[in-house]
Amino acid sequence: MEGKEEDVSLGANKYSERQPLGTSAQTKDYKEPPPAPLFEPGELKSWSFWRAGIAEFVATFLFLYITVLTVMGVSKSPSKCSTVGIQGIAWAFGGMIFALVYCTAGISGGHINPAVTFGLFLARKLSLTRAVFYIVMQCLGAICGAGVVKGFQPKIYQAMGGGANVVNHGYTKGSGLGAEIIGTFVLVYTVFSATDAKRNARDSHVPLLAPLPIGFAVFLVHLATIPITGTGINPARSLGAAIIFNNDHAWDDHWVFWVGPFVGAALAALYHVVVIRAIPFKSGH
Amino acid sequence: MEGKEEDVSLGANKYSERQPLGTSAQTKDYKEPPPAPLFEPGELKSWSFWRAGIAEFVATFLFLYITVLTVMGVSKSPSKCSTVGIQGIAWAFGGMIFALVYCTAGISGGHINPAVTFGLFLARKLSLTRAVFYIVMQCLGAICGAGVVKGFQPKIYQAMGGGANVVNHGYTKGSGLGAEIIGTFVLVYTVFSATDAKRNARDSHVPLLAPLPIGFAVFLVHLATIPITGTGINPARSLGAAIIFNNDHAWDDHWVFWVGPFVGAALAALYHVVVIRAIPFKSGH
Amino acid sequence: MEGKEEDVSLGANKYSERQPLGTSAQTKDYKEPPPAPLFEPGELKSWSFWRAGIAEFVATFLFLYITVLTVMGVSKSPSKCSTVGIQGIAWAFGGMIFALVYCTAGISGGHINPAVTFGLFLARKLSLTRAVFYIVMQCLGAICGAGVVKGFQPKIYQAMGGGANVVNHGYTKGSGLGAEIIGTFVLVYTVFSATDAKRNARDSHVPLLAPLPIGFAVFLVHLATIPITGTGINPARSLGAAIIFNNDHAWDDHWVFWVGPFVGAALAALYHVVVIRAIPFKSGH
Amino acid sequence: MEGKEEDVSLGANKYSERQPLGTSAQTKDYKEPPPAPLFEPGELKSWSFWRAGIAEFVATFLFLYITVLTVMGVSKSPSKCSTVGIQGIAWAFGGMIFALVYCTAGISGGHINPAVTFGLFLARKLSLTRAVFYIVMQCLGAICGAGVVKGFQPKIYQAMGGGANVVNHGYTKGSGLGAEIIGTFVLVYTVFSATDAKRNARDSHVPLLAPLPIGFAVFLVHLATIPITGTGINPARSLGAAIIFNNDHAWDDHWVFWVGPFVGAALAALYHVVVIRAIPFKSGH
Repeated sequence: MEGKEEDVSLGANKYSERQPLGTSAQTKDYKEPPPAPLFEPGELKSWSFWRAGIAEFVATFLFLYITVLTVMGVSKSPSKCSTVGIQGIAWAFGGMIFALVYCTAGISGGHINPAVTFGLFLARKLSLTRAVFYIVMQCLGAICGAGVVKGFQPKIYQAMGGGANVVNHGYTKGSGLGAEIIGTFVLVYTVFSATDAKRNARDSHVPLLAPLPIGFAVFLVHLATIPITGTGINPARSLGAAIIFNNDHAWDDHWVFWVGPFVGAALAALYHVVVIRAIPFKSGH
Repeated sequence: MEGKEEDVSLGANKYSERQPLGTSAQTKDYKEPPPAPLFEPGELKSWSFWRAGIAEFVATFLFLYITVLTVMGVSKSPSKCSTVGIQGIAWAFGGMIFALVYCTAGISGGHINPAVTFGLFLARKLSLTRAVFYIVMQCLGAICGAGVVKGFQPKIYQAMGGGANVVNHGYTKGSGLGAEIIGTFVLVYTVFSATDAKRNARDSHVPLLAPLPIGFAVFLVHLATIPITGTGINPARSLGAAIIFNNDHAWDDHWVFWVGPFVGAALAALYHVVVIRAIPFKSGH
Repeated sequence: MEGKEEDVSLGANKYSERQPLGTSAQTKDYKEPPPAPLFEPGELKSWSFWRAGIAEFVATFLFLYITVLTVMGVSKSPSKCSTVGIQGIAWAFGGMIFALVYCTAGISGGHINPAVTFGLFLARKLSLTRAVFYIVMQCLGAICGAGVVKGFQPKIYQAMGGGANVVNHGYTKGSGLGAEIIGTFVLVYTVFSATDAKRNARDSHVPLLAPLPIGFAVFLVHLATIPITGTGINPARSLGAAIIFNNDHAWDDHWVFWVGPFVGAALAALYHVVVIRAIPFKSGH
Repeated sequence: MEGKEEDVSLGANKYSERQPLGTSAQTKDYKEPPPAPLFEPGELKSWSFWRAGIAEFVATFLFLYITVLTVMGVSKSPSKCSTVGIQGIAWAFGGMIFALVYCTAGISGGHINPAVTFGLFLARKLSLTRAVFYIVMQCLGAICGAGVVKGFQPKIYQAMGGGANVVNHGYTKGSGLGAEIIGTFVLVYTVFSATDAKRNARDSHVPLLAPLPIGFAVFLVHLATIPITGTGINPARSLGAAIIFNNDHAWDDHWVFWVGPFVGAALAALYHVVVIRAIPFKSGH
C-alpha cells in the first residue's frame, strides 16, 4: 500500500515542523534494514561472530560480579545505613549496563541480557543462530560472575540469599510476574527507541548516547521493583544467581524470571514495530 | 521594527565572541518556525497524530507505574534506611522523565506532563487540538499506571497514601502553591531552553541531549519540595494518583496541583518568549 | 618569540598522535580570541547585555531557592534517613548548576557564581562592566531565592541555620579558607577546561557537553566539604543565605566565603593561562 | 596474512548491517596508529610533555584531596545517616575521575592512575619515558593531596584510617587481590573501549563522551568492593594514603594495591588487543 506509506511519512514530516523535542530537524534519507535471516551461513566463519559471543560472556560476567558483590555488601551489614544501600544496588545494576553497553555496543550490539536478545530477534535484528549463541554465552558469563562472588565468602553468600531473585513475601506470583513484564517492557522499549534505524539515519550520534538512557531504564526498574522480586528483567542474571545459590525457594519462582522478561520483551517489540514504526502498514506491494 | 531586530541580533553576535560557555560558535541561519495554528485540519488524518497520543499514554503510564511503585516501596518500610530512600524517589521521577523524553521525543515531542503541553501551547508550538488530545491521553495513562500499582497491594496502597500529592502539615496552601509554581517554572524553563529553535539551528545535537537536563530539573525539584507537597509539577501525575487513591484530603488540595503547574508553565513561557527570545520586540512590520 | 611558539605547537602535535583520550584528532585551525576590553562602549546599548544580567538573576534565584529548600528539608527532620540526606544536598547544588549552566550558557555564558565571573574576568574573557553587572545580579538573585525559602517557614528557617555557610566546629578558619580555595579551584579549573577556546575550535560540541562536568565539579566539592564549611565556593550563594539568615556567627565567618572563592578562582585562571595554555610564552613579537 | 585481515574486516562489515547498538554506521577509513617507541628523543624537549606531567600531578592531587576528604567526613561521623554515606564515597571517586578525565584528556590523556598508564603502555600507546614520568607525577600528586586532608584534622585523620586501603577483616588476601584485579580490569577495559582508535575513526565525538563511562566504571567498582578493600584500583591513590597514614597494617597489605591493579590492567590490555582488536592476527607479512 504505497498510499498508506505516504500518509505515514507525510504525517511525520508535517508534525516535525513544530515538534519541540524532536530529532527530525535534519531528516536524511534512511532505509529500513532488511530483516535478519534466521540462519546466516557465513556468520559462523567470521571472527566477529565469535568475538561478539566472547564479549557478551565477559560483559555478563562483569555485570553479575559487580552487582551481586554490591548486593552482598549491603545484605550482610546489620545497618543498611553503613552500606551503599538499596539505592546503591540499583545504581550498580543500571550503571553496569550503561558502562557495558557503551563498551560492547560496537562489538556485539551490547545486549548482556537474553530478554534484549529475544526482543531484538523478534524484530528480526539478528539471526536465530546469533540469538541462541548470545543467550548461551550470557548465561555462562552470569554463572561465572556469581560464582566468583560466592568464592570470596561462601558462607555469607548462602546466608544472605546470593542475590537470587524470588517473589518476596507479601506479593502474589501474579504481581511478581507483572512487575517483571512491565519492568522488561521499560528496558526493551528504551532499547528499541534508542537504536531505531530511522533515528540513527537522522542522527549518527544516537548509538553513542544510547547507553545512558538504557542504563537509566535498568536503574529505574530496580528502584521500583527491588521490594517485589529483587528485580530480574534479565534471565541470565536470574539464572546465574539461582545456579550458584541453588536453593529450593529460588528455583520455585525461577520461571517468573524467564516468562516475565520474555513476555515484556515481546510486548515492547510489538509496540515498537506495530505502533511506533507502523511497519505492518507500510510494506509496499 | 526591523531596526530593533537588528539591534538584538547585533548584541547577540558581539557578545558571542567572548562568551565562555556559549553555543554560538557556529551560528547558522535559523528561522523562527511560524506559530502553530489553533486547529490544523490535516492533523487528525495523519497516523503520526494518533501515534503521538498513544506514545504519551504509554509514557505517562510507565511514569506513574515506576514512580508510584517506588514511593510505595519507601513508604511501607518502617526504616527508610532499608529502602531507596526519599532521594531514590526523586531519582525515580527525574530518571523516568529523562528516559521517557529520550524515547518519545521523536514521536510526540516527549511532554508526558500537561503543564509542559500547556506551556508549549502558550508559546504556540503545537495546535490546540493536539494539546487537548495529549492532556487527555496523559491523564488516562497516569490513572492506569497508578491503578496497576494499587492492584499489586491494594491495602498497603491505601494505607500509605497512594503517592497522592497533598500540602503537608506545617505548610500553608499558599506555600504549597508557590512551591508548585516555582517548581514547574524550573521544569518548563529547562524545556524551553533545551528545545529553543535558535539553539537547534546552531547545533543539531541539542534535541538529543535535551532529555538529560530536563530529567535533572524534575529530579532537583523533587529533592527540594517532596517535604512540602510530595512534588506535583505534573497535573496528570497528581490526578492519576488522586483518582486511584480517592481520599477526601487529597481531593481538597487537588486544585493546587493544577493551578500551580499551569501558572508556573505560563510564567516560564512568558519569560522565554519575552525576555530570552524577545519575540514581541522582533516581529517586523 | 616565534620560536618558542613553534616549540609549543610542535610538542602538542607530536603528542596527539598517540594520545589515548585526547580530542585533537581533527585539529582545525583556531585563533585565541582577543582579550575582552575592560570597558566596551557598545555593550550597554545591546539587549543581549541586559538580558544576560536578567538570566543570571533568574538562574541564581532558582539556584538558591532549590538548594536552600533542600537543605531546610534535610535539616529540620530529626532523622536524616527520612530525608534526601546530605548526599541529596550535594546533588541539589551540583544538579542545579548542571541544569542552569545548560539553560543559560547561550544567553549569559552560564556563570551563576561571582567566583566564576571573577576567574573568567581575570582571563579577560569578559569586560569589567559585564563582570560587575553579573556579580550584582547574581547577589540580588541569591538574596531573593533564599528569601522565598524563608517565607515558606520563617521560624524553621532561622532555627535550622538558613543554609548559611560557617566554618564548622572542629575546623580552624585556616582549614575553612583552604577548603574554599581548593574547592573553587576544582570548579573554575573545570570551567576553564570545558570552555577552552582551543578545545572549542577542535570540537564544536564541547559547549553543549560542558555543563555536565561543571555540575559534577560542584557536586563533588559538596561531598567533600559540607562537613567543613557547608561548602560555599560561590560568594553569591553565601551572601544570599547570610543576608536572609542575618546571624552574627554567620557574618563573622563571611569573609572566608569571598576571599576563598576569589583566591581559588584566581589560581585556576593562573594555572589555565600559564601552565595549560602557556599563553605568556606564546605571544609573538 | 593478508587473507586473515580481510576475513576479520569482512566479518565486522557484515555484522554491522544489523547491529542494533553499533557505532559503525559511518565507517570511515582508519589506520591503527603505530606503536609508541619505548624512548622518544624529542619528547623531553617539548613543553607539552612537561605540561602533561604537571596536569597529571594536579589532577591526582585534586583526586586524593576530594576523595579522602569525603572518606574522612563519612568515617568520623557516629551515624552514617548524617553523612553522604558509603554511596557518597563511591560517587566522590567515580565523579572525580569523570571530571578530571574530562579536564585533562586533551593535555595528558587523562590517566590519573598508574594502572591506566601501565595498561596503555603495554598496548604501546605511550613511550616508556612518558609512562614512568606520569606514574611518578601521579604518586607525588596523591601524596600531596592526602597530606592536605591530614593537615585539616591530623588526629581525626589518624584515628579514622586516613583513607588507606587494607584487606578488610573477613576477607582473605587472595579475595582482596582478586577484587583489585577484576576491579581494575573493569576500569581499564572501559578505558580501552572508550578510546579505541577504530571507534575514534568512526566517530570523532567518542573522546568527548569517554570520560562518563570511565568515571562510572570507577564508581561501580567502589560500590562493589569498598567492603572488601576500600577499593584501590589505583596504586597512586593507595600509595598516597598509605604514606600519609603510615600505619603498619596498611603497609602489610600494600603490595595487593600494586600487584592487583597492574595484573588487572595487563589482562584488560591483553583482552582488548588480542580478542577485541585481534591485532596479533592482523599484522600483514
